[in-house]
Formats: sequence, structure tokens, C-alpha cells
Amino acid sequence: MAKITAHELAKKQKEISVAEFFERNKHILGFGNLTRALLTSVKEGVDNALDACEEADILPDIYVEIQNHEDEECKVIIEDNGPGIVKKQIPHIFGRLLYGSRFHAIMQSRGQQGIGISAVVLYGQLTTGKHAKIISKVEEDRPAAVMELAIDTNRNRAEVINREIMHWDKPTGNRVEISIMADYKRGKRFVYDYLQSTSIVNPHAQIIFKEPGGTEHIFERTSEVLPKKSVEIKPHPYGVELGTLIKMAKHTKSRMLSSFLKTEFSSMGSRTTDAACERAQLDKSLSPKNMTRDQFLALHKAFKKVKIMAPSTDCLSPIGETLIKRSLKHETKEISPEFIITASRPPSTYSGNPFQVEVGLVYGGSLPKDKQVRLFRFANRVPLLYQQGGCATTAAVSSIDWRRYGLDQPSGKGIPTGPAIFFAHLSSTLIPFTSESKEAIADIPEIENEIKLAFRECARKVQRHIHKKVRRKKTREKFDLITKILPEIAKKSASMLNKPVPSLNEVITKIMDVVWIEDLIEYEKISGKPVQKTLLEDSLEGHKEGIITKSNIMVVNYMRKPQKFNLYVVIPEDAVVGTVTPKPTRIANNYIKWNLDSIHPTGKIDVHFELAGLGKGDFDENDMYIENINPSYVIGADKWEGE
Amino acid sequence: MAKITAHELAKKQKEISVAEFFERNKHILGFGNLTRALLTSVKEGVDNALDACEEADILPDIYVEIQNHEDEECKVIIEDNGPGIVKKQIPHIFGRLLYGSRFHAIMQSRGQQGIGISAVVLYGQLTTGKHAKIISKVEEDRPAAVMELAIDTNRNRAEVINREIMHWDKPTGNRVEISIMADYKRGKRFVYDYLQSTSIVNPHAQIIFKEPGGTEHIFERTSEVLPKKSVEIKPHPYGVELGTLIKMAKHTKSRMLSSFLKTEFSSMGSRTTDAACERAQLDKSLSPKNMTRDQFLALHKAFKKVKIMAPSTDCLSPIGETLIKRSLKHETKEISPEFIITASRPPSTYSGNPFQVEVGLVYGGSLPKDKQVRLFRFANRVPLLYQQGGCATTAAVSSIDWRRYGLDQPSGKGIPTGPAIFFAHLSSTLIPFTSESKEAIADIPEIENEIKLAFRECARKVQRHIHKKVRRKKTREKFDLITKILPEIAKKSASMLNKPVPSLNEVITKIMDVVWIEDLIEYEKISGKPVQKTLLEDSLEGHKEGIITKSNIMVVNYMRKPQKFNLYVVIPEDAVVGTVTPKPTRIANNYIKWNLDSIHPTGKIDVHFELAGLGKGDFDENDMYIENINPSYVIGADKWEGE
Repeated sequence: MAKITAHELAKKQKEISVAEFFERNKHILGFGNLTRALLTSVKEGVDNALDACEEADILPDIYVEIQNHEDEECKVIIEDNGPGIVKKQIPHIFGRLLYGSRFHAIMQSRGQQGIGISAVVLYGQLTTGKHAKIISKVEEDRPAAVMELAIDTNRNRAEVINREIMHWDKPTGNRVEISIMADYKRGKRFVYDYLQSTSIVNPHAQIIFKEPGGTEHIFERTSEVLPKKSVEIKPHPYGVELGTLIKMAKHTKSRMLSSFLKTEFSSMGSRTTDAACERAQLDKSLSPKNMTRDQFLALHKAFKKVKIMAPSTDCLSPIGETLIKRSLKHETKEISPEFIITASRPPSTYSGNPFQVEVGLVYGGSLPKDKQVRLFRFANRVPLLYQQGGCATTAAVSSIDWRRYGLDQPSGKGIPTGPAIFFAHLSSTLIPFTSESKEAIADIPEIENEIKLAFRECARKVQRHIHKKVRRKKTREKFDLITKILPEIAKKSASMLNKPVPSLNEVITKIMDVVWIEDLIEYEKISGKPVQKTLLEDSLEGHKEGIITKSNIMVVNYMRKPQKFNLYVVIPEDAVVGTVTPKPTRIANNYIKWNLDSIHPTGKIDVHFELAGLGKGDFDENDMYIENINPSYVIGADKWEGE
Repeated sequence: MAKITAHELAKKQKEISVAEFFERNKHILGFGNLTRALLTSVKEGVDNALDACEEADILPDIYVEIQNHEDEECKVIIEDNGPGIVKKQIPHIFGRLLYGSRFHAIMQSRGQQGIGISAVVLYGQLTTGKHAKIISKVEEDRPAAVMELAIDTNRNRAEVINREIMHWDKPTGNRVEISIMADYKRGKRFVYDYLQSTSIVNPHAQIIFKEPGGTEHIFERTSEVLPKKSVEIKPHPYGVELGTLIKMAKHTKSRMLSSFLKTEFSSMGSRTTDAACERAQLDKSLSPKNMTRDQFLALHKAFKKVKIMAPSTDCLSPIGETLIKRSLKHETKEISPEFIITASRPPSTYSGNPFQVEVGLVYGGSLPKDKQVRLFRFANRVPLLYQQGGCATTAAVSSIDWRRYGLDQPSGKGIPTGPAIFFAHLSSTLIPFTSESKEAIADIPEIENEIKLAFRECARKVQRHIHKKVRRKKTREKFDLITKILPEIAKKSASMLNKPVPSLNEVITKIMDVVWIEDLIEYEKISGKPVQKTLLEDSLEGHKEGIITKSNIMVVNYMRKPQKFNLYVVIPEDAVVGTVTPKPTRIANNYIKWNLDSIHPTGKIDVHFELAGLGKGDFDENDMYIENINPSYVIGADKWEGE
């Protein structure tokens, strides 16, 4: 065969439109099979709807409907009460891949890529040949715009097929209707699971799901407060790539290096800017546009050597341990697990992007002992249902040796087997998904490490919990013996000898020789007579249930000498503290501290506090710590290790 | 806070250039961390080089050099002897994402996306701020073009910084030099592994790898024959999406539906075209451009109801079981495994894309018993080193219950633990990678199922192998007893009684009651006196080693009656058969068959054949089958189940 030359090969070289690329590689977008295609379509629509509502400070009311027509064709309808989309933008947002508002902003949001919803439109037209329909209303006193559109894949632009206006009852909102090929029968379960999980970690949203048969599922709003709004931040010098730095300098409006650094980066005050310039041996009045590659390189290196404040984490909106616990409780309510434990890490950064990891662990109950542990994964409050194997959370969990926590794991690696459920949430201004389908988190070392640390912390808490339980059980046996049987014996002996009943305090303290801390938690529905009116009313606005959590802690000194020490109880950050007795020394963000009075042998102190802003069962066990006393003498609390 | 309106949000809506998208999501392209970035850069360069050489029918000579400069900056150099790239195309191929020749062609190739090498250029400039350098020579008697370029990420176009020409010794070829940030120390091992694995499954390529220290590793070419060239095919009607069908019809030059179907699809002859049109109740003289969506829908449905020949599999170029076995042998030579077993599935299709699965399994030897089984994954002859957890091969392996094959697997799911190594290769005209980094195969049900079937077949072979070994061992004990000890006893008794030694044949056959088949394989280096000159010379051209594999099979009838049956030996498809005695009944593509003469009790037949075209050890055990005899009477061969 004659050899093929470069000239012949050149004829085949062609541009590939991004829409064509994804049309051919639709599995990369999450449309690899008919089951998954259904979930992906719903997910992209709902994620967009939630983002839009939150951006406009509107409590989301989301309506999802699936109509199942002939064969495997489904019409997916997603409607929200968000701000709507102005007419001019509709063709771009729905008819063009790589277009959007959230890509260029450094803030936490569900959509980040400008691909999601237009990918659904693309998949729909590819598989059904039908157009997408968008209805959008942006002002209360104006009609809604109705648009039917397709994507011209060769140009990656929308083709508007039809434009109309219509009356719509909503003040503002958006509705998309897209016909897709999908397997409803197999996909239904995933859609339901996704909506349920979404509702749990987004308690401020109401989601209604209408099935093809007409059945409606309502996932109620359980909180009237929008999550802390994430703020857009500027890039942080630690994470900026050299190439990006050069590009930013090329496009800056600043005339001087110093103002460029101060205005276009976060954490760069005058002092830090001066330090960085000095370290890089650069004149701070240099024009950024005229700097050479070597000068940028010097500056880039200087960034890493100068102390710069970590990026602000205002841009993050974690779920919070209470919500995670509630979510896990909900998922496992038929299992009656032995305990649920959560842990959250402080915010951190990778390549300059702030992120934060929260995890949880459910153990015991009727969870199967011979199945692999289930792992619930979330990213920016979105449940991830596919691609678990390729996810950094899986890698992190797999790298921990779970055998010493009572789980089975043949080689000390891999997903363990046993009666547990794991939960992991990553919030970040840029979730590094492994692909455009946003189903798994890439193996960024910093992130994987934080997830690992979080799960280790969780595991340690598990160990402590088990340890505490064992110790308490043993001591309780002793306790029962001496507090019930000894007095009986004393009474009997005394009556037989006709003598007064002797004081057993000394004997009891001699045998027990511990400080015993025990707690009881009760919940009370608010009747209209809240304990601390203003505080509670405040917090109740954000919480429909109107539950007061009452914690009663009994501290008894069964030692031979008086004891005086400090007691700490960890409380959820989102709880509002009501009445506290005795008077606490400190009420911090996440704990209450008491300097307890000296307790005499067999003496007792009752500690009581109330929390509002939590649901029933959100706070179901006091996490207690002690200070200024040898922890081995205390049953029911651990050593306080600091905040 | 005042509500944000749609108008305010609209101001933030922006186009995202594909280069910007990947600059921010570089982990999707395989640049998630510094170790991986090194491997990805080398891989994209080498894959391109191999594709280019093969397309031009040139035996690839690939040169890879890594220079490690200050800190973590590496210069990656990849040079090939391919056809080169014409000057005009260089900026497009290296300076633009989504541009290439292989995206629009339905054929098996390593590159498919038009992203790979330009992504390396993008990553290089992002992390080092340096330009890429390309040297390309397309004609022997002309100078080479030298170009330095960068990517303007806002426009996704190349910026050519410098153009020159230079003299280059090569007849034709291409060289890229790209500076990237990478962790050479940690990444080195992956680069070496990747190049070694690549060389093993691409024996027609020579690869030289020069390390920063100057050390050169040469992975020699072991075959002078290019793999079967994969042919470009047209889309198959079974796999075409409705939307694609409509688009094709819009752009076709055919004026009639019938000619449109016959010229633009594969497997559509006149008869099938007529059948499809009839089924869809469409006039075949319709103009494709004027058809309605409903007509296309009818046609699309008709495709699935009419019998259409499967797409041609000329477009596939599998590795072959011999090469897989050799690859596995090489990987495990220090382990001396107990056995290596391979299996390959017939070609199949998903969404109209032909694909084929080949797998292998290594068992025993000094492989660790308490570690997870290692899995080697390949796609279109490219080793996949990352993202194993997210790969369809992993899912397929995990879904098989390996416990009954002697491996540990707590819940009958997941990667098993035990002394084994798995191998899987997928060839396809479109490998459905989970992302643009091409590291894992998406969970397409058809593909996952074929991988599962292939591994099941492998597992069954393992079971058969173990079973055969156990049976042979038991029979051998009996055999040793009666063929060694019985004659001794007979001789002694006879001499004591002063009688002639009796014939033990009848006793032996009575006790043994089996047909015993045993084999021995030897290798001979060719001296210049080949056994069958023409055939062997032919085959040796393609194989440097010059090894003749000699197989000797001994068939002994230890039954009481004469036995007459057929013997089959499975041989590798790429082997060339030399002398065969006795005269075979048939030499097929992958087996030799003998109708053996009747063998009398204790009678013996020696079967001998020679194979050329294989390396030493490629064929190290005869896979033997019998026909027309009860298989339970035969030790050493199984029942022939047909081809």
C-alpha cells in the first residue's frame, strides 16, 4: 500500500463544535444510558432552579413532572418560582453549550459549567427530534415569554423555532419542557431518591414531583430560612496559576502592579502586596501589561513565600452537622441505628479554591452486616448518585483501615462491609468533578486528604462512643449494686440490730470512686409560651416545627473528696440557646461552659439548658467534656481538648 | 435585602470558551495533580505519535524525553517518525481544543476527541507561561517547519509566536516540546509503566525513553508487522439516534431516501433499504430534505424492526490472545504464576458503534494472597492507569462472585482479594470514556455486559483448568503405581516362581480405565534450516525472534477396548502451522483436528505439530479437546463443544 502523506491527512483535519463533541460523547454529560438520562435531565433542571431562586433570595418552590409517552419517550417538566430569565438570554442559556453566569464567578453554586441544561436540550433533540419549550416570566405585571428552540450543533447556537407570550399566574418563574428518550420504569427510583435527598439537604425548598400516573409526592419545606448566601470572591494568590496571572495582567485596567494585586485578588492588602513585590524584587509601580514572563514567575513564586491570609470562606455554604444528622436520621429511620455521628472540617483550599468537608456515619441497628457500607455523597448540596467508584470520597473511605472500628475489610483497603452508612458533603467554589456529568469528585490530593481526616475524626468519635458506652455500662452495674442493694442491706441489718440506718455515703464513694454524669433529653412542642420569648421567636421564624430541646444533665460526685471542675457541652452551631441553669461561664458558638461549684461527696448538681431552632431529635445526646479533673475518674464525659 | 431580578442576573450571563472551560477544569483533562499531569502529557503525545505512524503505514519509532528543570518544571519532548503535519495545520492541531481528524471518522484510533495534545499545550502555558514548540517535516527533500505557539484561551485559537525552518535528519516526522509543571519524582514510575505497557501491546513500535538524568530505556520492537489497519466505516442504522438521522438527511447530497440510506449508512443494501422503507410506509423516492419528524421517526423505528447485518468489524483491531498472554507473562515474569488464561468475545455493538472485549487472568505463583487483585485496563491499545474505580471494567469484575474461584470477596461483590491479576482490553470505533482525560470507560450496559461475559468465560476456563489438574494428579498417582510398581511385583513374583513375566496390559487397563493424553512443548531457535521453508519464512518476516514452537502430544489407551476418536488442539490465530503428524483432518484458523486411528488397549499414538510466528512461551500449553468418546474416560482433554 502506498504511504499516506501528511498532505492527505491534512484534508481530514476539521474543527469540532462543542455541541457535536458532546452529541457524540453524550455519556460524558451523564446520558450514557436511558436510566441515567432521566435522572440527569431532572437533576440539571432542579439544580438550575434552586440556584436561580437562591440567587434572587426566593424560597424555592420546585415542581417536577414526568410524562411518559409512547415507548421510551418522556417529557420532563421543571418549573420554579425563581426570578425568570430575560427573553434575550433564553436562547443562549438553553440552546448553547458553555454559556452561563456561574462559570466566571468564584462562589459556591450547583451549576458551574454552563453546560447542564443545554445538554438536556441537546440530548432531547438528539433522541426524540423534538424541540425544547421554555416559559419564563421576569416581572409580575408582564406576560411570560414562551419559546421553542433547538440547538444547531454545527454552530453551537440556538435555533428559535417559535416565540409567543402568555399569561402566567406566577409572579416570576421559569418552566422548561424537554422531551427525551429515557427508561422511566428503571429511572423512577433514582429520580425519587435524588429529589428526596435534595429536599433533605435543602430544607428551605419545597419540591413537588408528579409521576406519569398522576401520583404526586410532596417534599415539604421544613425551614423558612434560605441558607447563608454564598458570596462571590476574587481569586486568591496562592491558587492562581502562572498562566492565569499573566492573562489577568494582560486584561487588567490597573496601571500599576500594586493596584493590580490589591484590586484583582483576595487577601491582598497593602502590607501583603508590598511584601510580595519586595520578595519578588519588583517595583510596585511597574505596569502589569509590560511585565516579562520572568517577572511574573518571580511574583508567582513570591506569592508562595509571603504570608497571605487564607481566602475568605464567606463563599462557602456548608450543610451543617445538624442537617446532616437529620438527613441521616431520615434515611435510616426504619433501621433504628445505634448511633449517628458527624464531623466537619474547617475550610481549606486547593489551587486557591476554598472548600469544606462534612461527613457523617450511621452505625448498627438493623443495617445488614454482610453488605458493603453504603456511601451517600453530596457536592454543593446536590446528591451524587452515579460514578461512586470514581469519586474522591470513595477513595478516601477506601484508604482508611476500618477493621478496628468493627467493620470487615479483607486487606484493610476498599469499601468496608458491615452495618454502617457513610455520608460525605463537599462544598466549594469549584467542585472538581471528574467530568461534565458532575457525578464524582476528582482525586485532588487536598480534597481527598480532608475527606480522609473528616472520616478519621468520625471514626475516632465512634471509638470514643463505644468506649464510653462500655465504661458506663460497667459502672452502672456497680452503681446499681451499691445504690440499690447496699441500702437494702443496711436497712435490714439496722432493723435487725434495732439500730439507726448508718450513712452509706462513705462506703458508696469508696466503691464507686467516680464522678457520674448522666443526661436526659426531652422535646417540647411550643404552645405559645416560649421560654425566652425574643430569642426563641427569632429562631422559630426559621423553623416550622416549633420544638424546644430540653437537656437535663445530672452530675453526681461519688468520690471521697469534693470535686470542682468545668463542664462543656457541645451544641449545634445553628441552635439558639434559651434558659440555662446554673449560670454558664460562657456560651460560645458551638458549646456551653460551666465552672461548676465544688460538689461534696455524694453531692449532685443539676445542669439544664434549652435549645431552639432544631427539629425533634436533631440533638439527641449531649456531647459532654470536662476540664480540671482527671478524666479517668469521670463517667459520661471526655477530656476537653479545646475548641 | 432587595430581591435580585432576572435583568440583573442577565448581565452576568456570558459565553465560555472551550479553552477557558478546560483551563478552569483541567482535572477533567487529566491534569488534576502534578503527578498525573506528567503522565497525561506523555500519554497524549505518544498516543498521537502512534496514531500518526499507523495511519501512514509507518513502523513507529517513538522518542520520549523528559527534562527536569528548576523546581517542578518539566520539559516533555515527544518525537516520532510519522508523516509529519503540514505547516498550515500545526496551529490548529496544537493550539486549539476540539480540532482533529479522528473525531468525525468511525474507526478505531487512540485519539478520538481532538482535545489531547492541545490540552497539554494549554496546561503547559497555564502552569509555566511558556510556549510549545513543534517541529514537523512532511517531505523527505524539504526542510522541517519549526513553530512556537500559545493558545489564546478567550478565542480558543493558536497564537503563533515564532516560525522558522530547519534541516532535520529524519525523512518525515514530528516533534513536540512542551514545558509543564509536574512532579517528576512521583510521576516517573507511571510514565515508565505506561510506556512499558504500551510497548507490550504495540509490539510493532520502538519506544525510547530518556530520563532527566540521561538514562535511556529502550523498549524494543518485537514485531515488524503493523497491526491490522482499522478501516473507516459509515454509521450503522441500528445505532443512529433520531436526531442524527434528521441532521444527516438535512445535509445529504442524495435526492432520494433510498440512495440516502444506501450511500450514507453501512449494511444498507438495496434489499434492506427497501425493507426499511416498506416497514416505515415511506416512499423510497421521497426527498430526505423534505421529510417530516414523524416520517423520520417511522424510519427510525423501522430500522430496529428490519433485519440489518451487523456493522463490519474491519474497523476494529483487537490485541489478540497471544499478545495478551505475552503481555501478562511479561508483567508477571518474576512471579512465576501457576497459569495464565485469556478469553476474547466476538465483536458486538453499542449505539451502532462496533466494539470487542478481550480479557486475561493470571493466577497463583508468588502473587500476594491478602491484597486486592490488580486490574490492567486497556482501550484501543492504550493502557489506562488512573480512575480505575470509575471504570466499566471494574464494575464488571466487581459484579462477579469470585468466591467460588478461590478468591476472597466478603459480600460476593467488589474487587476480590487473592493471588490473581486481571487484564481487560476494549477496542472500539468510539471508546465511551467517562471524561476527556480518557482514563476510564463509562458504564454502557452493552460493554459492561460483554466484559462480564468475557471474565466469566475466563473464570470457567480457570475452573476447568483446576479441575483438569486435580483429575490428572489423581490419575497420575494411580498411573505411577501401576506402571512402576505392578511390573516390579510381577517381575519379582515371576523370578521367584521361575515363571515367565506375565503380560500386565490387561491388569493395567482394568485399573486405569482411561485414555491418557499428555503433552510437552519445546521451543527451537531457527538455525537456517526451517522445517517448512516458505511458510516459516513468511511468518518470520513479521517476527524477529525466529522461534519454532514444537508440540508433542502422547495419546495412550489404557482402556480395555480399542478407542477411536477425534482430537482437537486450539492454536493461536496468529500462528503459522508447520509440519503436522499424523496428517490432520483439518487445519482451521484457530485449531487443528485429527480423526485418530483406532488405538488398541495400551496402544499409543504420538501427535506432533510445529507453530511459527510466535514468541518463546507464547504457546506453552496445549488446549486439547476430544470428540466421539465419553469425556469422563479421558484425562488431559475436555469435550469439544464446537468452534
